[in-house]
Amino acid sequence: MKNLDCISTLINHFTRLSGCGYKTAERYAYQIIESDIDFVKSFAAAMVNAKERVKFCKVCGNFTSDEDCGICERRIESRVVCVVRDPRDVMAIEKSGAFNGKYHVLHGVISPLDKKGPNDLNLKSLITRVRDEQIEEVIIATNPDVEGEATANYIAALIKPSGVKVTRLAQGLAMGAHIEYVDEVTIGAAITNRVMI
Amino acid sequence: MKNLDCISTLINHFTRLSGCGYKTAERYAYQIIESDIDFVKSFAAAMVNAKERVKFCKVCGNFTSDEDCGICERRIESRVVCVVRDPRDVMAIEKSGAFNGKYHVLHGVISPLDKKGPNDLNLKSLITRVRDEQIEEVIIATNPDVEGEATANYIAALIKPSGVKVTRLAQGLAMGAHIEYVDEVTIGAAITNRVMI
Repeated sequence: MKNLDCISTLINHFTRLSGCGYKTAERYAYQIIESDIDFVKSFAAAMVNAKERVKFCKVCGNFTSDEDCGICERRIESRVVCVVRDPRDVMAIEKSGAFNGKYHVLHGVISPLDKKGPNDLNLKSLITRVRDEQIEEVIIATNPDVEGEATANYIAALIKPSGVKVTRLAQGLAMGAHIEYVDEVTIGAAITNRVMI
Repeated sequence: MKNLDCISTLINHFTRLSGCGYKTAERYAYQIIESDIDFVKSFAAAMVNAKERVKFCKVCGNFTSDEDCGICERRIESRVVCVVRDPRDVMAIEKSGAFNGKYHVLHGVISPLDKKGPNDLNLKSLITRVRDEQIEEVIIATNPDVEGEATANYIAALIKPSGVKVTRLAQGLAMGAHIEYVDEVTIGAAITNRVMI
């Protein structure tokens, strides 16, 4: 095999994607080589195009290809803002169809292990928005893990003094869960947060 | 989110890689967007470069960036040829360091379900090579599954009449296996093919 550095270069690029190990990267690289050139060129172009066109909304921090994102524009009258970790969470919540307020994307959570403190997050503008947009409720939708909880508590402490309602996504059984297989912390939360029927 | 078709285009391209489901593709796409532009550009270039530079060796069908691959050139004197399904198998066998003969890549196996017959494989040139290169042993290294076995038997029937030795990779326990967890067919093969110690 002569000068096949181009294959290992491609494999190395794939391994940079998190969750893609060496064997998987190798498989992807070989598939690229065995695909037709038109597909490979359009794949490469899609990559550069997505990177170049997608920006972050000046208002909420969500993905956009414009100055501000469609959601901020459409829901300008809303008095509820949902705080999420990253733009993928916005898409997940939008897909649920259960929320029709604004968003605010933190671009991370407080995580001392990763050397991420409150100043590394998109937090200052949240305080300004809560005041300027006359927000009545801040829903904190960070993940229910240690970093997510810490971040939620930090934000709650920041905002509560201004008298704005701060809420958190409910914790309990996931739809379709089998109680016998659910972890004890989740069962505990489901019991604590039980609701009237 | 305005005109974010560029994200879905990228996600769709990732899902075309086999073994990459929608959720994984989404994750990869968001990572691309969040990476720095230099990385994305070099990734895209690596893709196109690998596709454009890698060809198949005229002699054995292995990957090469030249007319013939280094292995064919270096081992021109060898009288043993190892028949494999695709170029990845060549790399795997080369890594083992246990073989120093030539290769012949079939680019597939006989698989009626995928409408692949013997004529769809790189088989004709194997017959020519066995004769012209005075091959003394053909090692068939297709996978030990139904298609691999069928292909091995087909090739053996083709070559044996010419008096050339035809062998098959040994089947038995994998290194580090726990016998209690090994499937019964493998245990059967390991007993049948037991060796003197």
